[in-house]
Amino acid sequence: MLNTFFRKKSIASSGERQDPAEGSEAADLAAELLIAPTALMQLTMSEARLVVRYMQPQILAKGTVFIREGDARDTGFMMLVLDGEVTVETQVASRAEPIIVTVLGRGSLIGELALIDGHARYATCVAATQLRCAILTREALNKMMQDNAPLSAKLLLAVSLRIGVRLREVTDKLKMYVQLTQAMEQEIGSRTSA
Amino acid sequence: MLNTFFRKKSIASSGERQDPAEGSEAADLAAELLIAPTALMQLTMSEARLVVRYMQPQILAKGTVFIREGDARDTGFMMLVLDGEVTVETQVASRAEPIIVTVLGRGSLIGELALIDGHARYATCVAATQLRCAILTREALNKMMQDNAPLSAKLLLAVSLRIGVRLREVTDKLKMYVQLTQAMEQEIGSRTSA
Repeated sequence: MLNTFFRKKSIASSGERQDPAEGSEAADLAAELLIAPTALMQLTMSEARLVVRYMQPQILAKGTVFIREGDARDTGFMMLVLDGEVTVETQVASRAEPIIVTVLGRGSLIGELALIDGHARYATCVAATQLRCAILTREALNKMMQDNAPLSAKLLLAVSLRIGVRLREVTDKLKMYVQLTQAMEQEIGSRTSA
Repeated sequence: MLNTFFRKKSIASSGERQDPAEGSEAADLAAELLIAPTALMQLTMSEARLVVRYMQPQILAKGTVFIREGDARDTGFMMLVLDGEVTVETQVASRAEPIIVTVLGRGSLIGELALIDGHARYATCVAATQLRCAILTREALNKMMQDNAPLSAKLLLAVSLRIGVRLREVTDKLKMYVQLTQAMEQEIGSRTSA
């Protein structure tokens, strides 16, 4: 399943260190995308290159369901999309078909929360096209914490920031919905009394 | 403003290292509370003791507003409550008075998201009683990242986990409100057509 666009030889899943001079075009792309605003922009390019050495390249066929909502077992990785599109879907109680929450493309980071906390996945992710991506497993993160603590501290700071951005976005949406339901309650109340 | 329950001499705000043998009763309490489920339970006791050395003790008088909703300037710290109670309040568009969101006590960690991202504060925090607390500033965190990268990586992993827990809680609430508004829409729709 593992492919080898980061170097000629396959990367060990334990996140074995490699010589940066051996970085392939895909490793360069992964490092560039890692420091984009959609991923972990707080890292420098040289830090990103080091993080990429702990990542595994992977190609997923169109239609592959690689993260499944509610799955609490296979939660030990996050993914950086190098090429292709991912649909993020969720089940809603009132519908038989899942609804598409968003479509993610090149440069998107997926699954960073489960990488950290290992809890059940919040949505289903499907490869809408063939997908070229780079995976960081929890084992590789643990190895990075042992090998290179300053780098892992920088990475975890960047990951906390991303989770924080999502927390602020969801909190804003929640505040909006609280106000909306208050307004609707008044609407229902006024019709009942009318 | 700074008090000195962690050792006899005042702690430098830069998070100067101290001999753990000099830990006072308050420093022990801070370390114990830091590894409780309400704060950063992923740390070990010895790691918590090291983190406490980067924290500043502080006593706040009853009534002190120490975090103000919308404040984007004074965001560079998180606080561990050692003793006393904090009310967390937020302004709602439809009311003149702020509403109390929650009351926090001993062992609560406050402001960890702003410590990481430095964005505006989401709620107002008021000392409901006299408050004894321990503060970790962003400068102290940066110093810890330089002094002791493995410790700061562990701390940041624990902080990400906490932010992740909040993200999951808020997302669950949001899902509930989305379903509630759908139900209310149907209610309003059926009354309109009736």
